[in-house]
Amino acid sequence: MAISKKPYKGTRDFFPQEKRIQDFIFKNMTLTAESFGYEHYDGPLLEEVELYKAKSGEELINDQIYSFEDRGGRFVAIRPEMTPTLARMVAQIHKEYPKPIRWFSIPNLMRYERPQKGRLREHWQFNCDIFGAPGRLGELEILLVVKELLENYGANSEHFEILLNDRSIVDGIFGKVSEDKDIQYRLYKIVDKSKKVSKEVLSKEVSELGISQDAQDLFFSYLETTQFDDLISILEAQKLTEISEQFRDFINLSQASGLDQYIKFDPAIVRGLDYYTGIVFEVFDKHPDNRRAICGGGAYAGLLQIFNEQPLAGVGFGLGDVTLKDFLITHNLMPDLSKPDNDIMISFQNESGFLDLAPLASQLRKAGIKVFMGLEIIKFKKVFKEAEKRGSQFVLLFGETEKEAGKVLIKNLETKEQVEFDLNDSKAIATHIQSAKKEKGE
Amino acid sequence: MAISKKPYKGTRDFFPQEKRIQDFIFKNMTLTAESFGYEHYDGPLLEEVELYKAKSGEELINDQIYSFEDRGGRFVAIRPEMTPTLARMVAQIHKEYPKPIRWFSIPNLMRYERPQKGRLREHWQFNCDIFGAPGRLGELEILLVVKELLENYGANSEHFEILLNDRSIVDGIFGKVSEDKDIQYRLYKIVDKSKKVSKEVLSKEVSELGISQDAQDLFFSYLETTQFDDLISILEAQKLTEISEQFRDFINLSQASGLDQYIKFDPAIVRGLDYYTGIVFEVFDKHPDNRRAICGGGAYAGLLQIFNEQPLAGVGFGLGDVTLKDFLITHNLMPDLSKPDNDIMISFQNESGFLDLAPLASQLRKAGIKVFMGLEIIKFKKVFKEAEKRGSQFVLLFGETEKEAGKVLIKNLETKEQVEFDLNDSKAIATHIQSAKKEKGE
Repeated sequence: MAISKKPYKGTRDFFPQEKRIQDFIFKNMTLTAESFGYEHYDGPLLEEVELYKAKSGEELINDQIYSFEDRGGRFVAIRPEMTPTLARMVAQIHKEYPKPIRWFSIPNLMRYERPQKGRLREHWQFNCDIFGAPGRLGELEILLVVKELLENYGANSEHFEILLNDRSIVDGIFGKVSEDKDIQYRLYKIVDKSKKVSKEVLSKEVSELGISQDAQDLFFSYLETTQFDDLISILEAQKLTEISEQFRDFINLSQASGLDQYIKFDPAIVRGLDYYTGIVFEVFDKHPDNRRAICGGGAYAGLLQIFNEQPLAGVGFGLGDVTLKDFLITHNLMPDLSKPDNDIMISFQNESGFLDLAPLASQLRKAGIKVFMGLEIIKFKKVFKEAEKRGSQFVLLFGETEKEAGKVLIKNLETKEQVEFDLNDSKAIATHIQSAKKEKGE
Repeated sequence: MAISKKPYKGTRDFFPQEKRIQDFIFKNMTLTAESFGYEHYDGPLLEEVELYKAKSGEELINDQIYSFEDRGGRFVAIRPEMTPTLARMVAQIHKEYPKPIRWFSIPNLMRYERPQKGRLREHWQFNCDIFGAPGRLGELEILLVVKELLENYGANSEHFEILLNDRSIVDGIFGKVSEDKDIQYRLYKIVDKSKKVSKEVLSKEVSELGISQDAQDLFFSYLETTQFDDLISILEAQKLTEISEQFRDFINLSQASGLDQYIKFDPAIVRGLDYYTGIVFEVFDKHPDNRRAICGGGAYAGLLQIFNEQPLAGVGFGLGDVTLKDFLITHNLMPDLSKPDNDIMISFQNESGFLDLAPLASQLRKAGIKVFMGLEIIKFKKVFKEAEKRGSQFVLLFGETEKEAGKVLIKNLETKEQVEFDLNDSKAIATHIQSAKKEKGE
């Protein structure tokens, strides 16, 4: 029986046309992170399962992770997210490393789940994190990185918004709703899924908590708040003055730094039951056909605790390649990458062409030119179509006449201009090609 | 108990300093492949185990592979090599794809084995392959890609050699040694490990095959050959004329294309019992402290067979990041990458500095400048040391005097030159920084 040609369920084959799209996406991530001084890091594909258990609890481990026992009896997992690896690495070096620590990575991750639109079993995720920033400027900078990243793809406030909340606010208000830790925990669960269920279901679940009507009213007045000012009023009415002032300052600072068109308060954003302690946020696509989060993150103080290390303030986000691609396509922000990006196709129309042209090809490559070499005679008639298929702007032609004269013909397929060069003059040919590329702004 | 901070056995944490080295290595791979018109592809991290069994047989599967059953009852493995994935992908598209198909990839791979120098459980491997090339020019081009890749790192014929053989030659000679397929198979096994065992052991193993003394002599005369000319003589004496002529033509072509200083015949190179059908080669480090293969590859005709597809001539190689890094370090070919590569550190010496400078920072980033922003007041005395640690050539200073005048001071840490600019003139500042980078040839 023949073996299947299909990729494993929930994963993708990146043929060159798809890989060009991914490389375009990755390149912008890298350039944006580096433009903020973030340093590239990476970690292992496998981690011991203990690490994920310590960070996320049993639920994630049991259902969604690719885990197995290795031949040496170690329980390992394919990384489902980068944060535990990041925490492990930062725990090793944070004492000596100059602060703030600004790092980014674009790892491939795997989760065992039912593949659906925007969610696959294997995906890549852009991770940016900053550790040891003073005050709240780390939180602010991370929001700026997200904003500038998406702007660098050509997106603006018509395309996306940043839905923002703060875990210290949620903790503060839930503490006023009830002093019972278990009820607070259940409130988090209710809020976390509040967008997915009806108001009736919500009311029913809250009424079952056994808290007073006043407490229920406070919870719902929080959950219905959509404006920063209204939130501040609630906080002040509850005498949560310090939390209120801190958040107001943060919002003012954010708005003054260019985020005013993007940020919006959203009481339902809490980012699960996870380890966040400061701001939490999700970037939402504004398009009605693609109303979904394309990125999420927040601030955390206790990430190094599982390694018995002192707390270190951190804030970061993760942004997946699948959702980002959907976002860019939805808003028509993806450039045309249907063809390869070669500079010149070298063709020959006589038997000894390959050997005659090999030195020139080598010299052009060393000058940074992308040279696509024909490996057999290609007739004049066919050569231009062939070059176009390969995304090549120039074609080199080398027939008997050229061979006898020691010349080559170089044709620009866009301008139709054709110029003759000495076979040995790789410098002039390289300059000719590069100046055309420069004109096009490449 | 605290969780371990160490990475899983045989894998690496890439802190920024190590990741810069890897990125340098990857960048050169990418540029070299693209300079030959190779297109980037990638595939899934997991494949169904059947794929590897079909290609490599049971041995690899049982001992060296990370395999497990997924929650849906599929037997899957973390890819230990890229070729099976590549074959699966090429099988999907080869009928419609313009030939030759030139593809490259730099996947992370995992093998379960005892970690040692040059071999880890997780590594990255540069893979280049060409399919559907006419005659032997695909084989030639692949050798040229390897050569130019290593030259692009600064290596030359003092540093490495390409040990070359051809499976059709080995098949031809072994066919003369014995017509028995089982004996031919055992001869391959003997040759494959011939460099690792003594001459006595070799003689003993060959004598146990039960073949005539003439046959044994032929085998050893082959195994002792080191020159292309001597090999040709053996082939002609055995009346393997067609094989002899074909190989001579290939060697002549290779030598004329710039490989003359690199290629060397090596009868012991057969690349295991694998699927090769044409040339097989290994690139060897010439340094006495690091005598090892850094790259291997060859030509194969039947790779698509397991998918019931027509044969398609292919040739390719794989080159691992661990062995390549060792090679570059051994020959002092690794640039100094100990520091990050920031362009400017923006510092401020007054309270409102962050907000005052945020718009400028954003504009510089959009102009392609790598801006590392201080998040709190840094005193003049400390600022230069801080910037140097971060690998930043420029520092922006912004004290009370500058704030009042609406100016910023930009200091070049290499030339010590200090220039004043208008706070709003991001264009002039960007040009100032870019022209300094251009002078340095960056």
